Amino acid sequence: MTNKTALVVSAHSADFVWRCGGAIALHAAKGYDVSVVCLSYGERGESAKLWKQEGMTLEGVKAARRKEAEAAAKALDVREILFFDLGDYPLRADRSARNDLVDVIRRVQPEFMLSHSLEDPYNTDHPYATRVALECRMVAQAWGHNPGEKILGAPQLYLFEPHQTEQCSWKPDTILDITEVWAKKRAAIECMEGQQHLWAYYQNVAENRANHFRRNSGGQAGGREAKYAEGFQSIFPRTVDEL
Amino acid sequence: MTNKTALVVSAHSADFVWRCGGAIALHAAKGYDVSVVCLSYGERGESAKLWKQEGMTLEGVKAARRKEAEAAAKALDVREILFFDLGDYPLRADRSARNDLVDVIRRVQPEFMLSHSLEDPYNTDHPYATRVALECRMVAQAWGHNPGEKILGAPQLYLFEPHQTEQCSWKPDTILDITEVWAKKRAAIECMEGQQHLWAYYQNVAENRANHFRRNSGGQAGGREAKYAEGFQSIFPRTVDEL
Amino acid sequence: MTNKTALVVSAHSADFVWRCGGAIALHAAKGYDVSVVCLSYGERGESAKLWKQEGMTLEGVKAARRKEAEAAAKALDVREILFFDLGDYPLRADRSARNDLVDVIRRVQPEFMLSHSLEDPYNTDHPYATRVALECRMVAQAWGHNPGEKILGAPQLYLFEPHQTEQCSWKPDTILDITEVWAKKRAAIECMEGQQHLWAYYQNVAENRANHFRRNSGGQAGGREAKYAEGFQSIFPRTVDEL
Amino acid sequence: MTNKTALVVSAHSADFVWRCGGAIALHAAKGYDVSVVCLSYGERGESAKLWKQEGMTLEGVKAARRKEAEAAAKALDVREILFFDLGDYPLRADRSARNDLVDVIRRVQPEFMLSHSLEDPYNTDHPYATRVALECRMVAQAWGHNPGEKILGAPQLYLFEPHQTEQCSWKPDTILDITEVWAKKRAAIECMEGQQHLWAYYQNVAENRANHFRRNSGGQAGGREAKYAEGFQSIFPRTVDEL
Amino acid sequence: MTNKTALVVSAHSADFVWRCGGAIALHAAKGYDVSVVCLSYGERGESAKLWKQEGMTLEGVKAARRKEAEAAAKALDVREILFFDLGDYPLRADRSARNDLVDVIRRVQPEFMLSHSLEDPYNTDHPYATRVALECRMVAQAWGHNPGEKILGAPQLYLFEPHQTEQCSWKPDTILDITEVWAKKRAAIECMEGQQHLWAYYQNVAENRANHFRRNSGGQAGGREAKYAEGFQSIFPRTVDEL
Amino acid sequence: MTNKTALVVSAHSADFVWRCGGAIALHAAKGYDVSVVCLSYGERGESAKLWKQEGMTLEGVKAARRKEAEAAAKALDVREILFFDLGDYPLRADRSARNDLVDVIRRVQPEFMLSHSLEDPYNTDHPYATRVALECRMVAQAWGHNPGEKILGAPQLYLFEPHQTEQCSWKPDTILDITEVWAKKRAAIECMEGQQHLWAYYQNVAENRANHFRRNSGGQAGGREAKYAEGFQSIFPRTVDEL
Repeated sequence: MTNKTALVVSAHSADFVWRCGGAIALHAAKGYDVSVVCLSYGERGESAKLWKQEGMTLEGVKAARRKEAEAAAKALDVREILFFDLGDYPLRADRSARNDLVDVIRRVQPEFMLSHSLEDPYNTDHPYATRVALECRMVAQAWGHNPGEKILGAPQLYLFEPHQTEQCSWKPDTILDITEVWAKKRAAIECMEGQQHLWAYYQNVAENRANHFRRNSGGQAGGREAKYAEGFQSIFPRTVDEL
Repeated sequence: MTNKTALVVSAHSADFVWRCGGAIALHAAKGYDVSVVCLSYGERGESAKLWKQEGMTLEGVKAARRKEAEAAAKALDVREILFFDLGDYPLRADRSARNDLVDVIRRVQPEFMLSHSLEDPYNTDHPYATRVALECRMVAQAWGHNPGEKILGAPQLYLFEPHQTEQCSWKPDTILDITEVWAKKRAAIECMEGQQHLWAYYQNVAENRANHFRRNSGGQAGGREAKYAEGFQSIFPRTVDEL
Repeated sequence: MTNKTALVVSAHSADFVWRCGGAIALHAAKGYDVSVVCLSYGERGESAKLWKQEGMTLEGVKAARRKEAEAAAKALDVREILFFDLGDYPLRADRSARNDLVDVIRRVQPEFMLSHSLEDPYNTDHPYATRVALECRMVAQAWGHNPGEKILGAPQLYLFEPHQTEQCSWKPDTILDITEVWAKKRAAIECMEGQQHLWAYYQNVAENRANHFRRNSGGQAGGREAKYAEGFQSIFPRTVDEL
Repeated sequence: MTNKTALVVSAHSADFVWRCGGAIALHAAKGYDVSVVCLSYGERGESAKLWKQEGMTLEGVKAARRKEAEAAAKALDVREILFFDLGDYPLRADRSARNDLVDVIRRVQPEFMLSHSLEDPYNTDHPYATRVALECRMVAQAWGHNPGEKILGAPQLYLFEPHQTEQCSWKPDTILDITEVWAKKRAAIECMEGQQHLWAYYQNVAENRANHFRRNSGGQAGGREAKYAEGFQSIFPRTVDEL
Repeated sequence: MTNKTALVVSAHSADFVWRCGGAIALHAAKGYDVSVVCLSYGERGESAKLWKQEGMTLEGVKAARRKEAEAAAKALDVREILFFDLGDYPLRADRSARNDLVDVIRRVQPEFMLSHSLEDPYNTDHPYATRVALECRMVAQAWGHNPGEKILGAPQLYLFEPHQTEQCSWKPDTILDITEVWAKKRAAIECMEGQQHLWAYYQNVAENRANHFRRNSGGQAGGREAKYAEGFQSIFPRTVDEL
Repeated sequence: MTNKTALVVSAHSADFVWRCGGAIALHAAKGYDVSVVCLSYGERGESAKLWKQEGMTLEGVKAARRKEAEAAAKALDVREILFFDLGDYPLRADRSARNDLVDVIRRVQPEFMLSHSLEDPYNTDHPYATRVALECRMVAQAWGHNPGEKILGAPQLYLFEPHQTEQCSWKPDTILDITEVWAKKRAAIECMEGQQHLWAYYQNVAENRANHFRRNSGGQAGGREAKYAEGFQSIFPRTVDEL
């Protein structure tokens, strides 16, 4: 019998670390095979520190970013990380790149997918990636796309946390306790040497989401003592047998 | 060891049948003790057929509505149904009535609560009941309210389906398969003799929500063949250990 | 055969003039009997000019406001104007006042109702009046409220234009050409001697809404040459036989 | 004198049947010439049953879908049905295809247009079609586009009902009684042999929208006894002479 | 010449510390006289730790909460702190209490006001306090309320940060650098001995809002190096002479 | 030392006049160098009057529109006006055009930017221009875009007023007093000979926005007597040292 699977669609090569590194490590620990697609390296827009180095080139930045992302993926027990190298700021995915993503979705057959918020005025690559993910999910469900392949079911698409949540109309409906894998997330975060200014920021986020976990699981009357958590917004309704 | 519990806060005495009768019967079948509070009988505003009878009185309408509701509750295996008799069109709950509801919440200690949508331009009693439920949930969490009593944790408040969903800004995020208890819900519906014009309507709703269940659980690629379902909107984020 | 009817619920005694004076005069010209309920005189909050007069009293302000409103109503061919004198800033309507409004609604049996926007951070009396109107509309539909009276059908509730539309989440879906009765609206406006600073403002509004009428009726390719118009937002869906 | 006209812009070749078949047949019965543009056949994404047949090809699916759509159009008394064959899942309309649509709009000069909801996370082709319709409507109004042609006025764009309304932020403001043409809509629905699982679903929708029609036209106090109805959301404000 | 002034309306006696302690201390340092109104002590709902003490009474809790709040106010250089003692969970302000608040507003004549978010499903006292503040601001502007008193202008109402921002539809449009007074805010926070579990939480909030300050003031290309900040949402538009 | 700067991104060559002519002239008077980019001339969609002239050509329309825009820019003391000539109805900006805009943004290094509303169902070019502006702002911030150039900070993007504000989900949060430069704005407006039907419309807008300025700056209790104003919506939060 095969493992359960999950798929992350990350606009830039570091996004999956800050925003859902805990979810990745936690599900890996539960036996999921987690695949990560980095649509770009974030080489132009999210690598300021590298560009400040003397004589830096685009290929040099990409290589450094890839190395960091691979190290982080390893720290999180990601099963495979794929780099589509589509360019960033702005990110663009043409028909061919989208078909590649459909191929990945169909091969992985994820239980759930993870991507960015639907809006982000600071970073138009993020909602662009989400729209690509939604379109490719739909294509992967089409019986007439590469007939004969295994058709995708209806995996949830979870939107992970953007940097300035309130500016991005992002509202979490699911809070995940990542306490047991926090050390792995922190290790992955520390692989992002070019963005050291964000390490403390995302530790604060994890601590405060854990406060939300405690409150929403019962607060001072039975709430669970989570130390670190991540929040997610669901696109589709859940189908359940018990409320 | 005691059973799990759930609590429905229904503005009028028939609302719990149309809107969450399936959820009630299903959780009862799973061993939950389900309590229903009817804030009013709906005696003025939702009893047109009774009022068309010669010589009908307010007490006569209330008695008839109570009888119907008790029969429906029995059909759904409700453990207790309480009638607050606060009046309807408009519904008003003063401090004393609200404290009574807090008492019920604390006694029941529900795993989850169910009430109306946050908006309803047709029926202002509905969102009023929901605001009462939210306030009483908060009071039940207060350590200084009747100190010494068992404090409430943080049960989810699910909003059940209003009559014209799109006019009420109601968006379901949870779809519950009620196929196995449909016969009970239909039997409860048929207890509502005064509102026979709604029987077919809510069967249609259940059938179409089941279509949504099938689609969101996988559609033609593995979706579950639910025949009847109910939809719910959550107020609070879920706290989970797995996505 | 009786005339068609319409009912305006105005928080303060001048609101009906600025916000729907054109609609009133136009429908009166079409043979409607238009009733106006002024819940208050706006004596405290919308009568600054009167209060600046030496020795002014509350009763003096009310009398002056009533006189202005009656003159405006006459200019608009209002059939009856009722003053509930409930006080303003803040407006409050208790059960008795609400029942009085229900009585008016049932007596008038309006084809449509008019009231304020659903939100207004500047003036909490305005959305309060709208909530009262919605609740009383619902009560007037209840067969158990004063059984034996004629039950209300389902009149549209149109929300007329607030002062700063965008701050009030007001979005017009209906634009009414009031060109033929503009002189009457202007005359009614000029009855409001205490608020002369608003005369030009609402003429500008009427002219610009007429521009919207022209654009939405065809623009430079067949649009109607309205000179003055008013905008309204509907609460309920229309039921039609033709799109 | 020429007939009134209407134009439907349908992303896939079956959408116009489920979502506005009643509106089409009703307006045809009133003497409108109704044109339907199917941007694609829905050959890849909405033809699962056909693809399950042994040896099916893309051209085979398209031919079958076209035949079904033509039969349905005939059943609904559509005057002309045009197939743009732009491909689906995903649908894309380039400049040339858009100019073709502008040509159709200008030739038809519709009283009103019909298309999809503004959002649909399940089906990105649907809102894409609506954006195309809005853009082409705008281009058809441009005096500098093919100067000398008859310029488009300002037809309403009605959004017809998506499959899971609440997930698509669709809110109907107009409910159309289609009782007298229901038999035609049902016949058209039955032309969709590949999607038999939807027949009952859309009959339920029509029955329940009729309940909304009854309620919003007066309910138990004078509401019209519609048996089948369709709901629509308007994009633009209406321009009227009477409320 | 008198000092500039500001007014905080706090539902419970600790809210002003967590949510706008920095704004208070900063404006005090700039020479503002800052007044704080605590509508309640939060004695029932926000004093769990006190209630866990053996033999605690309502008066005992209130006294302890008042002492903490006074100490915090002193740490923040508040000019006056007023306790309305209206009760909490639920908070209710009758006409008399509201008139008292109007009196305070008129006496203080604030440049700006601060209160809670417009929504909060966890804590209905918070939006209730904001609605009271908005209504009282309006009454304070009424020339007919206590004629002869100095009328209020149009101070901005800033909404300070609720505990779970995204669940409260709170979107900050203004970020205030509080670095220079952080020590005072931290000292005030530490006065809240009964809510020690929140100290780290709100330090995290302040650090992360400072990150937003840096980004929105220029980021890595000239942003200001704020270390601590607070966010606020404005209710009313600003009136300016320069963008 | 160099002047402060501002940048307007205008979809069509007249938009900057109606929508932010006052802001331009006012900031020019304060010493700002204001640059205007017209992405198109509005030659197809906003030049009806010109197209009605016998024998008019596309080039003729463009030349006339350019002349008008240059005259208006001069009247407003614009420092430079750039015509990208990308075509309109629909407007499209490819990678090369976007890079040109990034170049302008980096060269100008604006204190703030101005563009259209985020939505406009009448005119899809307007929100398209805003999305282009947001994307190019982001690219201009990327250290890896043309490394070595001066990186953009984080200028505010103000959205100026669309024609039918409520239909465009536009909500102004900033009102600018343009009284002192009104004569310049009126002169610029009168350069738009082809759109004379809009002159009075936008004077009405300016007068009514001034009413809002007066109210929001204190109303009858100290509000400033602005005669003409413009409204703007901000995309990003402000970073401030004082509320």
